Amino acid sequence: MLNFDFHNPTHIAFGEGRVADLDRLVPAQARVLILVGGASAEKNGTLAEVRQALGARTHATFSGIEPNPSYETALRAVQQVREGSFDFLLAVGGGSVIDAVKFIAAAVHIEGDPWSILEKRGRNIARAMPFGAVLTLPATGSEMNNGSVITHRAKGAKLPFSSAHCFPRFAVLDPTKTYTLPPQQLANGVVDAFVHTTEQYLTYPVNALVQDRFAEGILQTLVEVGPRILAAPEPVYADRANMMWTATLALNGLIGAGVPQDWATHMIGHELTALHGIDHARTLAIVLPALLNDRRESKRAKLLQYAERVWGLREGDEEARISAAIERTRAFFESLGVPTRLGAYGLGAEHVDAVVAQLEAHGMVKLGEQRDITPEVARRILLAAL
Amino acid sequence: MLNFDFHNPTHIAFGEGRVADLDRLVPAQARVLILVGGASAEKNGTLAEVRQALGARTHATFSGIEPNPSYETALRAVQQVREGSFDFLLAVGGGSVIDAVKFIAAAVHIEGDPWSILEKRGRNIARAMPFGAVLTLPATGSEMNNGSVITHRAKGAKLPFSSAHCFPRFAVLDPTKTYTLPPQQLANGVVDAFVHTTEQYLTYPVNALVQDRFAEGILQTLVEVGPRILAAPEPVYADRANMMWTATLALNGLIGAGVPQDWATHMIGHELTALHGIDHARTLAIVLPALLNDRRESKRAKLLQYAERVWGLREGDEEARISAAIERTRAFFESLGVPTRLGAYGLGAEHVDAVVAQLEAHGMVKLGEQRDITPEVARRILLAAL
Repeated sequence: MLNFDFHNPTHIAFGEGRVADLDRLVPAQARVLILVGGASAEKNGTLAEVRQALGARTHATFSGIEPNPSYETALRAVQQVREGSFDFLLAVGGGSVIDAVKFIAAAVHIEGDPWSILEKRGRNIARAMPFGAVLTLPATGSEMNNGSVITHRAKGAKLPFSSAHCFPRFAVLDPTKTYTLPPQQLANGVVDAFVHTTEQYLTYPVNALVQDRFAEGILQTLVEVGPRILAAPEPVYADRANMMWTATLALNGLIGAGVPQDWATHMIGHELTALHGIDHARTLAIVLPALLNDRRESKRAKLLQYAERVWGLREGDEEARISAAIERTRAFFESLGVPTRLGAYGLGAEHVDAVVAQLEAHGMVKLGEQRDITPEVARRILLAAL
Repeated sequence: MLNFDFHNPTHIAFGEGRVADLDRLVPAQARVLILVGGASAEKNGTLAEVRQALGARTHATFSGIEPNPSYETALRAVQQVREGSFDFLLAVGGGSVIDAVKFIAAAVHIEGDPWSILEKRGRNIARAMPFGAVLTLPATGSEMNNGSVITHRAKGAKLPFSSAHCFPRFAVLDPTKTYTLPPQQLANGVVDAFVHTTEQYLTYPVNALVQDRFAEGILQTLVEVGPRILAAPEPVYADRANMMWTATLALNGLIGAGVPQDWATHMIGHELTALHGIDHARTLAIVLPALLNDRRESKRAKLLQYAERVWGLREGDEEARISAAIERTRAFFESLGVPTRLGAYGLGAEHVDAVVAQLEAHGMVKLGEQRDITPEVARRILLAAL
């Protein structure tokens, strides 16, 4: 096991009806700016519930945070925070809204252009406004971590940052808030949580036995509930609850503590989203199977463990078991309605160079737990994902 | 899944050499009272390392906290805190020292007799001194939770309390600090962590899929590393690291979030320790197999899941699989050198009434996740454990 620090101070309030707890979770004297994505939180009544729970607190709403939240939109929110003297931010939405709120909370205190937060990956954040989250889309884990990904539309750049100052104070996780999500967002959420887990698990063994067991438990749970959620004619609370808590646990620092981490799938995927607007989770579903196949030597031991413990594959030689595990992974994503080939999104070999060029432009030239996914390897992976 | 709150703000600094991090973790201006058990921390050099890391900070040492830490000893420490105007406590030891420090941290601020903390199970704690821990004995999980058990020697009472104010600010987990532990303490640690897990897992199903997987992962890890640790001629870092982190995860609130909890084994075991001085973990090893057998109807579904997933038992009918799982549990404890019968500790049927009377005296009359372990059931369990 590698040395590690684990410190996650986010308070989780989990279960049906927990939005009412905002009255207890948000400071009594707070001036609250609520931040949302599109119109769904207003339409499905969640915003009304939030406003009711805030009671007599001064509050206003900033609407319009996009999927893959933009620097440009976040700057408008920073301006509203300053003009309205708000001192508490409340994200109501999924990972995009929460990621944006993390950036806004930090950007308020940054001198000069806050894009520096992305350029320095968050190292220049000395403080941030306090904020909480009401999660409506289980997927990214942003509700219980200190990381965020922001897109600069003008630059075509999608970059991550993190900071110890950017943990949500609390996150309300009410599984019934997922009931109005369309199937594509549910499927994306399952894939996103799955790949968050593989990024921290499918590397090389460091004798971190319990972290491996936890990662395998998360993957097994997603494999169990994902298809059931997509097939159900009506939402089933237990399945939604398991998906929601599992997605949070997939990226709250726990399974990544003391182990090597990959994240190459994410970094390559980010460029696909930035250039072609493909849903984040769908870029992961494209890149992961091709990447695992390309890295089967350096990931051999963990791929074999994954094959056996997650997919129950015990027959055949090592190569056959690894190939079968990768194919099961691909088939799992496809079974959720998430295509795993670039062609399904209208992209061909002629689009690969530009993606690789963007990786280089963003300094993403030594990716993966071995730092051996160079632009040339990334190109090979993308070509294998056609 | 049941509704739950999860909020664990303890900062874990894990790995060899992390004691030096105390310089960063303890406030620079703190006046520190270091609290230890016996002489081992002084003899094996850990205390010297701690004092060096504290640098120029004013500090003193309170020594003599017993296994099953006593109210009486803790009160002497409270006096030293007041007389020395200390403002930060640092526990260096195992669960007993950390439990005592939690009580001391709260008792300093209590009006009147601080035994009220136990009588009220911690509900009267409005604040506590800040404190941290350097763990030397992996077992209780006290280093990352807000619970504590204190023994009133004069009353022969061993009672638990908890409070949101009693989380350690940090815990330093250096696996090499376990290298000087005698085999009995290592074996006790494995059993303690194991039973912490079963108390939160072997109840009844509530569709908490990922919590179940995590609990099973902890149990599987303990089954894997426990015997190896006891058999090794020299300490192996990886095994000690896995034991240490696994024991912490067994009782940091995570696997208990959103599920029913039992704790009857602990409450019955506490009385055995209070009356007869049996090591805490050994009382659990006595009670658990007998309790599982007595409660096999109400715990049926989880016992079958435990049999299959932890012990790989898939043959035979339900009764046979449950019996085999209980026997494997007993054999696991015995294989670590931990006897599982009252007789091995010199106790017979004539000692049972007094244990049951103490349970009644402490209001422990409806124990277990179903609140159905009455004094009569506890008597039956103890008689089955002869």
